[in-house]
Amino acid sequence: MKGLEEVTFDEKGLVATIIQEMSSNEVLMVAYMNRESLKKTLETKETWFWSRSRGELWHKGGTSGHIQRVKEMRYDCDGDALLVKVEQTGVACHTGEKSCFYSTLYKEEAVKKKEAMLEESENIEELLS
Amino acid sequence: MKGLEEVTFDEKGLVATIIQEMSSNEVLMVAYMNRESLKKTLETKETWFWSRSRGELWHKGGTSGHIQRVKEMRYDCDGDALLVKVEQTGVACHTGEKSCFYSTLYKEEAVKKKEAMLEESENIEELLS
Repeated sequence: MKGLEEVTFDEKGLVATIIQEMSSNEVLMVAYMNRESLKKTLETKETWFWSRSRGELWHKGGTSGHIQRVKEMRYDCDGDALLVKVEQTGVACHTGEKSCFYSTLYKEEAVKKKEAMLEESENIEELLS
Repeated sequence: MKGLEEVTFDEKGLVATIIQEMSSNEVLMVAYMNRESLKKTLETKETWFWSRSRGELWHKGGTSGHIQRVKEMRYDCDGDALLVKVEQTGVACHTGEKSCFYSTLYKEEAVKKKEAMLEESENIEELLS
């Protein structure tokens, strides 16, 4: 398969894979693919991963129905990371959150202020509508 | 430091870190942080990584000037991946590309068509301007 030989798997046979929502560019999750899950992803155009905790192939959404339709796949300059742009059905995170990255470690004051202003403006618009 | 205890480092003491451009949400690169580089990143508000190939701490842009100003940092639901939103000076990739993910492994036909139409429309706008 074209480009597949460009992907470098680590000593465990895995490659870090970022899942990004196609429409918004929001990062939804990070998971790991092995060669087999990468092939299944390219064949089915739905995401398959290697579960490091369960030690098994994992079809994302196979149980929950929250599948990810693959729109685009990229690999980075040294071939040891993948970026998959998807259309997400339901939510990506098992907690029920849309993205797994819902916890903030740091936010710049200017970003906080901008977000607060945006929220206020949305509230005002709602009151006026 | 608040939230730092939520981050889980792997058996090599590393955590996978996605760098995303704040303004566009474009994914620029993936790199790895250890505890020290994460602390330095939070202290200086510029990205620091652990270089797995050179085995040393690495201040992104320290040599090239292509630094990344940290605007926001998030961690995922199991704490073993970080998402850092930055303002990138210059480009993120050592090849000179803006993002390290410049190589395509797969693109859906509908996405290709949409991109071709967008390009054509931009070309027409340019001719008319």
